[in-house]
Amino acid sequence: MDEGFAASQAVAPPAEAQALAERAAAAMWGRDHASQGLGMRMVAIAPGRADVAMTVRPDMLNGHAICHGGFIFALADSAFAFACNSYNLTTVASACSIDFLAPARLGDVLTARAHERTARGRTGVYDIDVVNQRGEVIALVRGKSHRINGQVIVP
Amino acid sequence: MDEGFAASQAVAPPAEAQALAERAAAAMWGRDHASQGLGMRMVAIAPGRADVAMTVRPDMLNGHAICHGGFIFALADSAFAFACNSYNLTTVASACSIDFLAPARLGDVLTARAHERTARGRTGVYDIDVVNQRGEVIALVRGKSHRINGQVIVP
Amino acid sequence: MDEGFAASQAVAPPAEAQALAERAAAAMWGRDHASQGLGMRMVAIAPGRADVAMTVRPDMLNGHAICHGGFIFALADSAFAFACNSYNLTTVASACSIDFLAPARLGDVLTARAHERTARGRTGVYDIDVVNQRGEVIALVRGKSHRINGQVIVP
Amino acid sequence: MDEGFAASQAVAPPAEAQALAERAAAAMWGRDHASQGLGMRMVAIAPGRADVAMTVRPDMLNGHAICHGGFIFALADSAFAFACNSYNLTTVASACSIDFLAPARLGDVLTARAHERTARGRTGVYDIDVVNQRGEVIALVRGKSHRINGQVIVP
Repeated sequence: MDEGFAASQAVAPPAEAQALAERAAAAMWGRDHASQGLGMRMVAIAPGRADVAMTVRPDMLNGHAICHGGFIFALADSAFAFACNSYNLTTVASACSIDFLAPARLGDVLTARAHERTARGRTGVYDIDVVNQRGEVIALVRGKSHRINGQVIVP
Repeated sequence: MDEGFAASQAVAPPAEAQALAERAAAAMWGRDHASQGLGMRMVAIAPGRADVAMTVRPDMLNGHAICHGGFIFALADSAFAFACNSYNLTTVASACSIDFLAPARLGDVLTARAHERTARGRTGVYDIDVVNQRGEVIALVRGKSHRINGQVIVP
Repeated sequence: MDEGFAASQAVAPPAEAQALAERAAAAMWGRDHASQGLGMRMVAIAPGRADVAMTVRPDMLNGHAICHGGFIFALADSAFAFACNSYNLTTVASACSIDFLAPARLGDVLTARAHERTARGRTGVYDIDVVNQRGEVIALVRGKSHRINGQVIVP
Repeated sequence: MDEGFAASQAVAPPAEAQALAERAAAAMWGRDHASQGLGMRMVAIAPGRADVAMTVRPDMLNGHAICHGGFIFALADSAFAFACNSYNLTTVASACSIDFLAPARLGDVLTARAHERTARGRTGVYDIDVVNQRGEVIALVRGKSHRINGQVIVP
């Protein structure tokens, strides 16, 4: 996880909520073999927000020699998961839609930026934008979250 | 690729279209490092249809100890890609939506079954259902395809 | 409501479930000013299924002189609502996606055919296909339903 | 159309683009029987943006005595249409997804705020948020636009 990721948020959240988001993310990250195995890096975390980066590797290329859509989705899904679990209430994705806008190529550094749009009861809606190293939007994802019982960490 | 996958189709397509679908899939498969690296197996291919299977591995588990949604999506996206390129006209996904209905766990054998719903001009709509080894539907995906220029193979 | 709509189902459901679906639909229909005002007709109802028809009127045309997408969606949404309330458990739509495949024009007779794809706990997924009088698919809708407390009728 | 709607945009667009957006919207509005018939009001228009309002009428209520989802969608779809035609290049919706977050009731004044997220070639992605008179988000819509040939007005 990068140093100082909290500073990337435009409006600093209350310190306790921020500390909880960081601790929950660190715990989830430690046991998230999928995100680790795909070489993802946590770039920023805050209540309701997470930025996660990933470099396109040779084993991520499909039969058209561009990044398989599954890995672009996986990056967005990880950012979504860290954002919606940032309140330390165990939450899963119930649905997502993705618009693929431009291809990603070998070596591209992709960043997925997830933020909460609405939260109501156990349901939340998150937008996750995926950009490349030139700042071009390559995919737009919208996800719906569902809170189940349990906490990510014992606070 | 399994033997006899053509026989899985309810209505046998004309032999030439089927042969072209098989050749296009074999060529795409050979260069699809992503699907191969995720341990996918082509189960069936026919014009407008493809079934692809994948076993959930330890490196596919997320922080909740269930299969990361990205890999479920990737499986569906691969089946979608093989189905929509089965006419040997180069086609990419422009958008997808996924509903996650049940979790997948370590060792589960997932099969994504893609079939064309509509085709009109350069645009197609495909439904891709993901089931586990007990026949339970764990995800429903709908994808929109966009045909670009080029062919998968020289026929 | 047409005579004999139950006969349109490929597999006849148990008589009690069918009778309940018909009674629930009749009660909902009676108080559904929106569907009535748009000139919709119930064509078929069965557990988990409903077909609803609508003719494109002059007041449904948009600035491009084709049927405003809102009315195509409304037709699909009504069929969805009748299908997912057919078990007499009050259910609402939580999300929908629609792919517009062809325009509808003045006087076209559209039919939306809704059927349940999956049901699990309080959540269901329904597919609703909208066809015109020539059998052409003009829109594909997928909806997610959420059961709340209450019943449509006292059975 | 309200007076001074251009002033609602945070960053004033170049005067010519704004004038073209206003003229295109006025022309579309004049022939859009659907939006007029539903009692919609144009609140703001700018290049890539449109706000449209609608009051929930008795004939918009469904069998649950809340606003039929079709009318909420129709409002969003109209705002989307005015936004994506604001460059005076004829554009239609190819797909939309809607998340219903809260019900709308009789007399509620709903406003749909559409803005362009990305544009690339003939394809655009728009987000349309629907809020009520208390500023509560009742639905989130994401739409995909496709530019066809032709212009809305002769400039």
